[in-house]
Amino acid sequence: MTALLTGPGRAGADGRAGVRIGLDIGGTKIEGVALGPGGAVLARRRARSAEGVRAVVEAAAAVVDALTADLGTDLTDAPAGRPAAVGVGIPGLVDPAAGTVGDAVNLGFGPDRVPFGPALSARLGGVPVTVENDVNATALGARELLAPGADLALLSLGTGLAAGVVVGGALLRGARGAAGEVGHLALDPRGLPCPCGQRGCLETVASGAALRRAWPHGGEGRSAEHLFAAAGAGDPAAVAVRDAWAGAVALAVRTLALTCDPEHLVLGGGVAAVGEPLREAVAAALRAQAAGSRFLRGLAVDERLTLLPTGTPVAAVGAARLGERTGAP
Amino acid sequence: MTALLTGPGRAGADGRAGVRIGLDIGGTKIEGVALGPGGAVLARRRARSAEGVRAVVEAAAAVVDALTADLGTDLTDAPAGRPAAVGVGIPGLVDPAAGTVGDAVNLGFGPDRVPFGPALSARLGGVPVTVENDVNATALGARELLAPGADLALLSLGTGLAAGVVVGGALLRGARGAAGEVGHLALDPRGLPCPCGQRGCLETVASGAALRRAWPHGGEGRSAEHLFAAAGAGDPAAVAVRDAWAGAVALAVRTLALTCDPEHLVLGGGVAAVGEPLREAVAAALRAQAAGSRFLRGLAVDERLTLLPTGTPVAAVGAARLGERTGAP
Repeated sequence: MTALLTGPGRAGADGRAGVRIGLDIGGTKIEGVALGPGGAVLARRRARSAEGVRAVVEAAAAVVDALTADLGTDLTDAPAGRPAAVGVGIPGLVDPAAGTVGDAVNLGFGPDRVPFGPALSARLGGVPVTVENDVNATALGARELLAPGADLALLSLGTGLAAGVVVGGALLRGARGAAGEVGHLALDPRGLPCPCGQRGCLETVASGAALRRAWPHGGEGRSAEHLFAAAGAGDPAAVAVRDAWAGAVALAVRTLALTCDPEHLVLGGGVAAVGEPLREAVAAALRAQAAGSRFLRGLAVDERLTLLPTGTPVAAVGAARLGERTGAP
Repeated sequence: MTALLTGPGRAGADGRAGVRIGLDIGGTKIEGVALGPGGAVLARRRARSAEGVRAVVEAAAAVVDALTADLGTDLTDAPAGRPAAVGVGIPGLVDPAAGTVGDAVNLGFGPDRVPFGPALSARLGGVPVTVENDVNATALGARELLAPGADLALLSLGTGLAAGVVVGGALLRGARGAAGEVGHLALDPRGLPCPCGQRGCLETVASGAALRRAWPHGGEGRSAEHLFAAAGAGDPAAVAVRDAWAGAVALAVRTLALTCDPEHLVLGGGVAAVGEPLREAVAAALRAQAAGSRFLRGLAVDERLTLLPTGTPVAAVGAARLGERTGAP
């Protein structure tokens, strides 16, 4: 496997043309990949995540060390046997320019932004580290794997609801880092309170957490599979919950189509584990909403809907690419 | 004035570095400008518009001829005394690649797309013509005049409701030409039918036409000024109509901020003639919607709201730039 590292793309004198490591840091696990200069996955590691800034830095560094060890002698002619760059996808409020992270609740990071990128870089002996929001990293990885060259939005159906948008080959971050934040579009003044402080946000009706609230069956993290199985078996209560929830997700998808209008609209996040029945339910809601409108039918939003593949470390691959795109400091 | 044309920027052998003409074609008038190589407005013309494809081509060509004549001898060393390029902003469904236009109801264009760009180019003896949706042309002009270098969305409050979005220096057109079409986000299943075939679109509550429906006073095209004057004078019915309408416009603005997140959010279209009271009403609605949300307040959407200046041929300037950006065929 490491033989792929030889050849003209091998790490140059400054190490920047060499191996890039991408980390997808979540509340339960850290997924890591090492990409060769041509983009091939040379090594892959998965480890348990941690809680608190220091512990997460240490756990992330351990994954980088393990991947570096996996690559063995092929890194020895890079400066100090290090990767050229490390990219990190992480939940919470991320400032990619400063490498700071705040409000990553599942990782035990508080509201104050902490310099996660600089801390990891220091722990790794100065390897350049780029930090990005996990949804944005996933969007970059999805573009790489599903739609090279085309614009794409990745709608993440997890605890929250947010999209990563890639247009013209680059992440759309927005002037205030709010690009793709459709989950906090407040549409129903009589709706549920949202953690963001508004009421009736799309996130309160179209996220994984909203689905779990509406269908609290199947145990931790399994409510979506349970709901779609029950609806598929014809349970009328499950069908009603599924269709209402899918209609709200379809509204989030339409919002992306009528603003950024990317060619590919990709469903990801924890609920994507449901697979094809999820895509079918949302596509059916999109078709129903478009039935009376030649304009909307012409946009064929339902046909542009795809699922993020499971079992592939999409976010980690995107994180590795992120380092490449942003360049080393 | 034409002396500005001399110097190093003068039209080269292929004519492409020379004078560019921009046309803003509306239902009542055609506005035209001639821009020098450095971007200065060298000449400006306004003419009555026409109805039907042939008549509109002829009226547009007459404006180009008049601007060319205004420039006099300064064009005589360009090939055949012609401008380097003509850009056109026009309402309706525009395919910029083919130069076709359809559904431009105010110009008497039917649903079938007609090759407007090629027809105007032929009438002008082969001058390259680029055609773009009028809202997009206005967005390009607004960026030029208000926010060079920054991303911008221009929300046009006219008969319809649509935005032109400029990110990374380029128009965001979208995979199906639907970028910025927030007006057709259907949010209220019990709302009014929309010309697009859906029900409860933002356009049915937040456009100039929606305002006129809610406040049918002041005569043709003056209902917005009438409403804001009456509300400003304290008429409670006018205050209620203004605030409900401004709240719907604020929702369209927030939708742009939470998807594309451009630094500048500019209100344009016929209603923008109201001026500062319009901006204040929408900004107040944005502040009220953000009051309970630290997240939303942090985005400072109200502070990013500006008005398109009136009396400046923004759309025609943007149309002229369009020719430049797209390049001559």
